[in-house]
Amino acid sequence: MNTINIALVQQCMQANPQTNLEVSLAQVQEAAHEGADLVVLCELHTSLYFCQEKSARHFRLAQEIPGPLTRQLSLAARKNHVVIVGSVFEKRARRIYHNTAVVMERDGSLAGTYRKMHIPDGPGYFEKYYFAAGDTGFVPIPTSIGKLGVMVCWDQWFPEAARLMALGGAEVLIFPTAIGWDPEDDDEEKQRQIRAWQIIQQSHAISNNLPVVCTNRAGHEKDLSGTTLGIDFWGHSFVTDAFGKITIQGPADVAETLHASIDLDETKRCRQVWPYLQDRRIDAYGDISKGSADVLRDPTPAPALPSRESRKTRR
Amino acid sequence: MNTINIALVQQCMQANPQTNLEVSLAQVQEAAHEGADLVVLCELHTSLYFCQEKSARHFRLAQEIPGPLTRQLSLAARKNHVVIVGSVFEKRARRIYHNTAVVMERDGSLAGTYRKMHIPDGPGYFEKYYFAAGDTGFVPIPTSIGKLGVMVCWDQWFPEAARLMALGGAEVLIFPTAIGWDPEDDDEEKQRQIRAWQIIQQSHAISNNLPVVCTNRAGHEKDLSGTTLGIDFWGHSFVTDAFGKITIQGPADVAETLHASIDLDETKRCRQVWPYLQDRRIDAYGDISKGSADVLRDPTPAPALPSRESRKTRR
Repeated sequence: MNTINIALVQQCMQANPQTNLEVSLAQVQEAAHEGADLVVLCELHTSLYFCQEKSARHFRLAQEIPGPLTRQLSLAARKNHVVIVGSVFEKRARRIYHNTAVVMERDGSLAGTYRKMHIPDGPGYFEKYYFAAGDTGFVPIPTSIGKLGVMVCWDQWFPEAARLMALGGAEVLIFPTAIGWDPEDDDEEKQRQIRAWQIIQQSHAISNNLPVVCTNRAGHEKDLSGTTLGIDFWGHSFVTDAFGKITIQGPADVAETLHASIDLDETKRCRQVWPYLQDRRIDAYGDISKGSADVLRDPTPAPALPSRESRKTRR
Repeated sequence: MNTINIALVQQCMQANPQTNLEVSLAQVQEAAHEGADLVVLCELHTSLYFCQEKSARHFRLAQEIPGPLTRQLSLAARKNHVVIVGSVFEKRARRIYHNTAVVMERDGSLAGTYRKMHIPDGPGYFEKYYFAAGDTGFVPIPTSIGKLGVMVCWDQWFPEAARLMALGGAEVLIFPTAIGWDPEDDDEEKQRQIRAWQIIQQSHAISNNLPVVCTNRAGHEKDLSGTTLGIDFWGHSFVTDAFGKITIQGPADVAETLHASIDLDETKRCRQVWPYLQDRRIDAYGDISKGSADVLRDPTPAPALPSRESRKTRR
């Protein structure tokens, strides 16, 4: 078995960034003690999810890479001899910021970074105000334990992202995440959302024959602008095998560090039985790189008869 | 509500093609009586799933389009004033055959065809022997009830296919299917497969904000070559809403015609809340059209240290 032990640090965030970081680092240490080879932290695991409001003051949270946060993560990786996926509100240049995942190697070196490519922007999640769209592309990060297909949150809804990581040789797909419920939604709607969120990520496992790891934050966070009732981050961090089956899942509303093993050889066995990658029609996928203007336009009224030239059947 | 009523004709096939066609046509008539606007038949709904073996004699089942089968479907569509998605083993030219879905308009005209683009080829499913890969691309077929994103079976495992249909303006994704269990698999493996099969199709609904309709055959069919124990086609025809929730599902092992309504306006509401199509990174998807040689090659051994030039953090 080509197994790696993974720990997912599902955190509830506090207002003080130092407190959050200390929790992250303590969980890294404990996870390594329990045998983890890889620790996956949440998206923006040192702060409240400030994107609920648009306020210039939050830019003070941003840091350069390397910077104080990556130095702390580097020390923790080296001290505990563990690979860490962390998350940084990256100050790249004057007024150019990114939502960036960092991967620390066991020796404390920076194995690589991934700048969130798909940026959401809607009520509760005003990320386009803070983050420029990433420019890393979807490139797996090589580490001593395998090639990690690290993406971030909103990326998880885009099958193109997972596919490109798989084509690049990713051995596991990893999504640090910050997603939750609108407290005004009823239970049925909440279940609908969380099921869709899991299914879309399970589907990346299935279509690419790869295990998926998703770490989400938990707990209620206020909307500091007072516009909404805030967000109940829904936890449910989870791991799937290479055929999309959820093998472990966290609670909805409290912090918890989950431990799971993934077998990287399962991918090879899955691809033998379900050889999707062999049957892809790369000659016919060009339009994936085109926009979707036709779709986003309101649909034209259905024709009374087919609008296409129809070949009549003989009767 | 912009609702269409759909009937899914889950059939158990017999050896005699005429018997199977009579069942298909009788179910079309009954479904139309019960108010269906659209009837979706199974993949290759006039024959046993002959692809379990490779035998030249099965090419006799193939027909041209237009031909006897499309004429029958055309008459049924006109007589019952209903749109029909049917399936034809298409004889296109000397020794060029396709696995082709046909869409008949309510007036009996041929609204369009789709030639299966992704062709499987493994034990039990030797389709590459019979079918040339399709050349239609992923183009929705316009009809009086909406633009139908018709694909076939193995296509359902490829997120590219569903995405291209959505970008082309499809209002519903439709998969006539023939898939089943190896009788030698245990119950856990069977459940694993059917869940993966549903999840991958639910994911197309979610990522494209479109309802999905999948009609599968049911019942045991022998492997006429005697090589295997045959296939237990697993039924479970189903419909999802535009957020991937399964709203109706057929039985595993018997024929049944399912009735469901889908609300085409739900797509618009979903896209408002989950605007994936707006956030796609079409500048970064070019490699989707490249092959997967890197992936299919056995993975190189993990490096003891990161193989990539690593930027050292200062300590």
